[in-house]
This record gives sequence, structure tokens and C-alpha cells, in this order.
Amino acid sequence: MNFLRNAWYVAAMSTEVDPTALFHRKILNTSVLIYRKTDGTPVAMHDRCPHRFAPLHLGKRVGDEVTCVYHGLRFDCAGQCTLNPHGGGATPANARVRSFPLLERHGFIWIWMGDAPADPAKLPDFSPLDDGHPNAFAATYMHLKANYELIIDNVMDLSHIDYVHGEIITTRGQLSPLTPKLTETPTTVASRSEWSQQPALMIFAPFLPDPKAGARHFFEITWTAPANIQLSVGATQDPNARLDLVDSTGQYDLHTCTPETLDTTHYFFATRRNHLVEDADYNLAKIQAMHGAFENEDGPVIEAVHAEMGSDDFFGLHPVLICNDTGPVKVRRLLRRMVDAEQQQAPATAAGTGGRRHYAGTTPTPEQA
Amino acid sequence: MNFLRNAWYVAAMSTEVDPTALFHRKILNTSVLIYRKTDGTPVAMHDRCPHRFAPLHLGKRVGDEVTCVYHGLRFDCAGQCTLNPHGGGATPANARVRSFPLLERHGFIWIWMGDAPADPAKLPDFSPLDDGHPNAFAATYMHLKANYELIIDNVMDLSHIDYVHGEIITTRGQLSPLTPKLTETPTTVASRSEWSQQPALMIFAPFLPDPKAGARHFFEITWTAPANIQLSVGATQDPNARLDLVDSTGQYDLHTCTPETLDTTHYFFATRRNHLVEDADYNLAKIQAMHGAFENEDGPVIEAVHAEMGSDDFFGLHPVLICNDTGPVKVRRLLRRMVDAEQQQAPATAAGTGGRRHYAGTTPTPEQA
Amino acid sequence: MNFLRNAWYVAAMSTEVDPTALFHRKILNTSVLIYRKTDGTPVAMHDRCPHRFAPLHLGKRVGDEVTCVYHGLRFDCAGQCTLNPHGGGATPANARVRSFPLLERHGFIWIWMGDAPADPAKLPDFSPLDDGHPNAFAATYMHLKANYELIIDNVMDLSHIDYVHGEIITTRGQLSPLTPKLTETPTTVASRSEWSQQPALMIFAPFLPDPKAGARHFFEITWTAPANIQLSVGATQDPNARLDLVDSTGQYDLHTCTPETLDTTHYFFATRRNHLVEDADYNLAKIQAMHGAFENEDGPVIEAVHAEMGSDDFFGLHPVLICNDTGPVKVRRLLRRMVDAEQQQAPATAAGTGGRRHYAGTTPTPEQA
Repeated sequence: MNFLRNAWYVAAMSTEVDPTALFHRKILNTSVLIYRKTDGTPVAMHDRCPHRFAPLHLGKRVGDEVTCVYHGLRFDCAGQCTLNPHGGGATPANARVRSFPLLERHGFIWIWMGDAPADPAKLPDFSPLDDGHPNAFAATYMHLKANYELIIDNVMDLSHIDYVHGEIITTRGQLSPLTPKLTETPTTVASRSEWSQQPALMIFAPFLPDPKAGARHFFEITWTAPANIQLSVGATQDPNARLDLVDSTGQYDLHTCTPETLDTTHYFFATRRNHLVEDADYNLAKIQAMHGAFENEDGPVIEAVHAEMGSDDFFGLHPVLICNDTGPVKVRRLLRRMVDAEQQQAPATAAGTGGRRHYAGTTPTPEQA
Repeated sequence: MNFLRNAWYVAAMSTEVDPTALFHRKILNTSVLIYRKTDGTPVAMHDRCPHRFAPLHLGKRVGDEVTCVYHGLRFDCAGQCTLNPHGGGATPANARVRSFPLLERHGFIWIWMGDAPADPAKLPDFSPLDDGHPNAFAATYMHLKANYELIIDNVMDLSHIDYVHGEIITTRGQLSPLTPKLTETPTTVASRSEWSQQPALMIFAPFLPDPKAGARHFFEITWTAPANIQLSVGATQDPNARLDLVDSTGQYDLHTCTPETLDTTHYFFATRRNHLVEDADYNLAKIQAMHGAFENEDGPVIEAVHAEMGSDDFFGLHPVLICNDTGPVKVRRLLRRMVDAEQQQAPATAAGTGGRRHYAGTTPTPEQA
Repeated sequence: MNFLRNAWYVAAMSTEVDPTALFHRKILNTSVLIYRKTDGTPVAMHDRCPHRFAPLHLGKRVGDEVTCVYHGLRFDCAGQCTLNPHGGGATPANARVRSFPLLERHGFIWIWMGDAPADPAKLPDFSPLDDGHPNAFAATYMHLKANYELIIDNVMDLSHIDYVHGEIITTRGQLSPLTPKLTETPTTVASRSEWSQQPALMIFAPFLPDPKAGARHFFEITWTAPANIQLSVGATQDPNARLDLVDSTGQYDLHTCTPETLDTTHYFFATRRNHLVEDADYNLAKIQAMHGAFENEDGPVIEAVHAEMGSDDFFGLHPVLICNDTGPVKVRRLLRRMVDAEQQQAPATAAGTGGRRHYAGTTPTPEQA
């Protein structure tokens, strides 16, 4: 399946791109260079000099510009060539690198890879990640050898948690028998579950009045295109409390996937909790535990599924679907409709300027015409 | 070339599948799970949950059943889903894994991967491996980066042994000049050689009356489909003795190949000797020496041939064939005829149930219809 | 793009093929065996036994002949089978290995892979490499994960040296602004540059009258098919001196590429200098420095370009070309015209004898007819 291109993907955690870095990452099969201007604003462009195709991240920063390692052509942060040290020094108008719009929000740098104008309004609102004490927020990154839709499946259907994960997140068999309540819009699929268990989820039990007693819980999961899953989870022992993050002890998470290729994925994860919000040590331990759970528990299963499926299409393999698959299957179908619609509007174009061949410098070279 | 499917292949040595293992191996490009029921009987099934395609060997044993690591679906040893912990718990009729018939014989677990009914009578009789003292039998396994037909070639034509191997198995140039006597049936190709050499094959000389004197020898080699080669070899200094394993000092071997892919092969080897039959130390040393000879001498040559041939067809490369190739060439042609006949009868179907998509659980989901 | 086949490529440095070696290297996608006869003359043949396709370099030298490791067939240095130890011992006329003409010149063994008769006159004259003290000549070899045309580009256009390399070879910005003077013939492309800088190129400054003063310099670069670039470079502080290797302090280099595959290249380099010609230590240090410069500076950039381009065609990617690209672009076009012309004359044939199948030995085997 082709990628949805006119959409925001996370290109990097904000912390990955330091002030001096020429950061690079392959996104949707395209090499991307990301760096920060001296004012801190991140910029992105095709990580490929339009001259001889050297990766620009091998070059050097010169103020807000970057100089190619190979022949010293210099490009501004919009991708336009500003210096050609060769021949007469003319900078051909087509000597430009495709640049990509960025947004920096919620601890991430988001990139727009499509040909349609970048639309900041298309980035869903994940502002709850921003509100609160800094020690209650954390983010992490992992690389997986698996198609990104398999990761979406994993997060959209949490009925796996009692099987894949250990004591820390078990629902003690309470979640699986439930069929989540689904809500769809033209651009989202949401799933909500409520259940009780005793004791509570171990990630919350220590913060409840009676850690050993039962508690009511909820999951609220919302997918937005292309690959964002916002997940809220909480627990309460107050019979009058609402099952939301105002009344419950819980956390607001964002799982988001950026395809590197069809077979490999950049997986980003951010979380904000509403308890013990000032404790930096707990914050670090929590994100490490979440990172470890995905890396050691979900990740190996998802990669094994990907290896087993090979290049076969998911539906082409005739999966035997059960009730909890309804959510992820709705996501797969809606995403496919969105990709198909985008493809019909405008066929995918390769990254790069598509500029015509042109010699710059002192001497016209008619034989190359 | 396609694989012959309606045939018995060795899936594992009996000793590889211990009572608690969820053993797995790729066979004919298909992931296979093998384990033993509590009564010791081995069972095999597609190593792929029909729900989300997780490898079942990552899961857990529950009595004679196996639980998928990902969402806890449980399957009996015939591959039928017996427990669906999700939603209402209904187990959809099509939630089944393809199982594969097994036979455990001669120290190996044999598997039938084809669509035709498994026919135990199609497993050739290798019972001489079973008869005698346990310390006179041994088996081993190797993995090769080579097409399995190149290994059949190697064992069907032993004229290579004076060149590839060392002193221990040299015929001192006596074997090459002979043209083996070939015997064919509709399903077998057999080759017999007889020769004299002095001293005898070093694997037998110490057990003959005069280790330094000459001796008469024989090879009797029989290929049966798909990839079994039964090889008997012996030596005698008694001028009245017959050249067989009754009258001669010798051994009865089985070499058998199981394609993992077209480019990689599971190679299994078993041997029984008729001398020094109670000596466990000698038994171990002998199988280690045979393993080493193949791993260090034949194996590298066969893998180098495979790498040199790439994906080219053997006959398409116009080999210059010599007299000793007659046997292996007859095998290649007979095998190809058998594969072609099987393909014409029934086109190859992918492993798996081929079941239609189906949601099991509490709630029908009409939108997926 | 196909390779030009009717041309001389370097197969090895002379020093790589010692008197007893069965040297092997893949050239133009073909496995090649190279060894020296007892009189020292190098010979080359397809590194593939025509019988069962074992690499001949795994075999053994027997005088000027080579015995296959697998079944003991022996071949003379023209590739003809001279010994078949099997059956009656007849050596089938078609049991021959394709041999390849070689020339040993200028410290290299050159190979002709094409079907047209090898023409020694087609090897350009690089005899200046031979003339002079042995301690003023050196050669080296590197393997690159890049298409060979990217290496030609690199050497044909030296405007990169101020950017890719360090102090030792910098022109202090003097070279880039110049447009090289190009000269073409039907089979060559030559480029000449002249400039002044202060101090001189650091590789020459210590040998000039005033190491800190300015000097006039020249590059003279000549490409000949398929992938040879002869490069002379020198400096002088004498206002009356000519800018050539007679009057200037300089060196005469040969850079030459031999495609292993479309994605990997054997890169050979030889140099002779006209100063400090007896100093063996300096000679060693100089070739090590040149090897290091390519391995650590050019090589990584070229490999990164290759990885970024993937399998895309250079012109298909619409490079933005600048004045200094004129030389390498002329080379790319001339080479393509030469390859196209060769393809039209005779379609590429696979290496090997193309012999028909044939059984040699005592017994005709009619069933194989």
C-alpha cells in the first residue's frame, strides 16, 4: 500500500535535533535532513544535494545554511542554492533542494511530505501533552522492523495486554471479554472500554486510596490519520468519580508511527500523567519501563508477525478476525480509503526538484543541450 | 523448480523435540511448529496463528494445546481453536491452524506437507537403522546454504570422495574409474559399485583381519523421493564373503534433505554399523567425524557451487557431464517428472486454512461483510 | 547500463598474484581465476568447473594446470580439460573452461572479458609508470560499494578536492573557479587546469625552492575507455618552466576502475613521482597517504552517493550540473555510446563455454540424449 503523504508525521523527538546537529532520518522512503536555525526553528529538506546527490548531512553548517561535503555548494534552509564556488559562481535557479514543512509541537518535530500545501490544522490537537509540570511528561523513540500498520493494530486493540505483558499492566482477564465501544468520524476511529478489576492496574494502584482494593478503569483510544493513536487510561476507587483524566488517576499518551519503509517503522511515544507530577526520578523510571515493555514485549511479537507475513497483504492472508479486531480493521480500511483518494487526486511524485539538467558557471556547454 | 509436496520429509531428529519444546523450523518455505503431546506423540502445525499471524512457537504449552503469545487464542494439537478469551468467547469454526501429519521413525520425525492424504506407506523402509544395539546408531543435522538437489548430487555420485575428503575415506583412486551399475524403478534410482583397494577404507580397516591388506568393497546407494538416499558401504577380506552388510564390515546410512527454501536445506544423516556395536565412545566419535567431514569438506564445496550457480537452472547452465553423473542426473529427471505430475494434478496451494474472514465474539459487525 | 566488454580492465595488482596462488576475483559479474604459470606468466579463466560448477580456486595447482576440488578434473591454463579420472578417462572436447586474455603491464594484470579478439593495442600507453627508479612507483587497491562511474566522476572532476580532502591537497580555493580546458577524441576525454597558489600543494611544497612561496600548478587528466584515468599533477616556482612533468615537481598517476558488479567496484591506483625517487620510506608513506585519502575521504562520500541514488539512473535523477561537470558528463556519454555500439554489434553472451550437454567416459548413456 502507498503511504498517505498529505499528512503530518513525527520526524524526530525535539530532543533528537540539537542546536548544532545535521540530523538525518529516512521517512516514507526519502532521506530527510533536519537541523535548527540559529533561532532554534527546525527546518527540513531532502538529504540529497541536487548536484551529485551526496547526502547533505555529511556537510557542514554555515550559519543557517548547509554546505555540501562533496563540492561545496551551499543551500539555505529553504533549500535554495546560495553559493556555487565553481566557475563564475552563478547559482542556477534550479539548484534547489526540496524542503519540507515542519511543525514543532508536543515534544516532537512533525513533517509534511506531501505535495499539497502543508496544513497545520491537519495536525490533531494533542495539547494535553503540553499542560502541566515538565516532570510529568516524557517521550521516547524506537525503530521496528515491521510495517507501521501492524503497530497501529497493536495499539488500537489492547486486548493483547494480558498476554503479551507482565504483571505491571495486567487487567487480570477483565478486558478481553469486553467489546470496546467504537465511534467513527470521517477522519477518526475511537474506541472506549470500561471495566473493574482488583487490584487495580499496577501502574496506578500505588496512587489509589487502597492499593489492594478493586477499582474502575477506562481506556479511551483515538486514531487519527496517518498513524497517531492517542490513548488515555485511568483508574479510580471513588464510586462517584467520572472515568476520565479529571477524576481518575491516569495518563494521556500518544503513540505515533512514521514509516521509514514499508518494512521498517519509526515509533514514537509520549506520555503525560496526572499524578506524582513533580518527581523526575519517577518520570524517568516510568518512560524507561514503557520503552522496555514495547521493546521487549510488543516489539518482538510485532516483528515476528511482520517476518511471518512477508510481503503478503494483511487481508489477502484471510485473517480470522475476532470481536476486538473491529477497531483496528476500521482504521485499516479508513486509512486505505484516504490513501486511495489521495492517489486519485495526484499521482505520487518522487522527492526532489525534478529540475531539468542545467550547467551553471562561466561557460555555456552547448554539446550538453 | 517447485517442491514435491505429497511426500515425507524429515522435519527434525527425534532428539531435537524434547517433551516441553515448542520446536519450530521452516520447511518448504512454510513455518512449522512441532511439539510432543504429553503422551510423547509429536504433532505439527503451521507456526502461524490464523488471527494475527503471530508465530505459535512464541506462545505457551497448556497440556496438549498451545496458546498464542499475542491474544491468547488456544489451539489443540489438530490445529482447532479451543479457547477464545475475547468477547463472548465463541471460537469461530474457521479459527484453525493447518496441521501436518507426522510419522516418527528411524530416529526422525517425518512430515507430510502436501494436500493429498498422508500415506505412511510412502515412507520408504529404513528399518535396518532400528535393528541392533543402540550404541551402533547415531544421527546428526546440518544446515546448508545450498539447494537440496546439489546435496543429492553429492551423495548419489561418490566419485568425489577421493578429491574432497582426506585419508579416512579414500578409495586410493579405485572408485573413479568405475562406472556404477544403475537400477531404476518408477520411484527409485539405485547405484552399485564394487572395487578392491589396499589398504581398505580406513573407517573399516581396523576391524578387518589384516588392517594393512587389500579388501573388496561395495557401495549400494538408493534414492527415493523426495530426497532420501540410503547408502550401504562395506569391506571384506574373506574371498568367499558376499559384498553386503551380512558378510562385510560396514554400515547402513541414510542421508536425507529437507528444503527450507530453494536456497537453503536441512540435511539429516543417520548411520548404523555392524561392528563394535556396543561402544558408545566410538559411536560418538564416529558421528562427530562424519558430521565434520560433511561440514568441513563437502559442505563448503556444495555451498560454493550454489553461490556460483546463483539462481540459474542446473541444466540451463549446460553442465559437461561425465559417466558418474548418470545416477544423479537420473534422479534429477525423475524428481522433476514427479513434481510436474503433482503440479498438473493439483496446483500448489498456500499453507494455511484459506478460511474466509470472519469475526467471532459477541457482536456481529456488518460493516466488515 | 551494460559494461563495455571488449576492453582491458585491471584484474589485479601484479603483487596480488604470487607464484603459487589460485587468485580469484569477480569481474563484470563473472568469477575469474588467475594464477601464474611456472614461468611467471599470468593466466585467467572462468572460476567455474564446467562439470559441476565448483570454483576452481578451491582446487589445487599441478604444474601449470589446476585440478578441481570436487571431482578431480584437471584443466590446462588455456582452460582445456587434460585429465578426467572417471570412467575410461576420456576428456570430452567440450570440457573446457573459458579463458581470458591477460596483459601484465605497469604493475597490473589486465584482463579482456569481451568476445571480440583481445587487442593489446587497445591498452592505452601508461609507460611513464614504468620509467624510473623502483622506489618512485607504488600501487594500491580498494574495494568500494559504489558503481564505477561514480568513481570516474570523482577523478575526472577534481573541483571536489578542496571540500573533501584536508590541508595536504588543498588548492586554497584556486581550482574551483576555473573551468578546465577539455579536449576530446573519438576514444578519450582530457581535461587540463592551470593555476597558482601560495603556498604550493603541500605534497610538493617541501620539494620546491621556497616551500612557503607561491607556485604555478597544473592538472592534466585523460580518460580512456573503459575506466582509466591518467592524471598528472605538478608545481613549479620557476617562471620559465613549462607546466609538465619534465619541468615541474610532480607525479604521474593512474586511477582505474574494474566493475565487480553494477554496485561494487575494484579501484586500482598507481603513481610515479619525479622527486625523491630513491626513498623507499617516503614511497611507502606516500602510497599509504593516498590510499588513506581515498578510503577515508572520497570513498565514504562516493558510497553515500551510491546508496542515495539506489538503482536510479544518473541522468534520470536530473542532476543540476555545473561547469566542472562538463568533463565527467562527456565521459559518461562517450562511454554509453561505446557500450551501445558494442551491444548492437554483438549481444552480450554469458561467460562459459556454452557447450552442449555431453557425457564423457566409458559408457554411452542413451537415455540422456
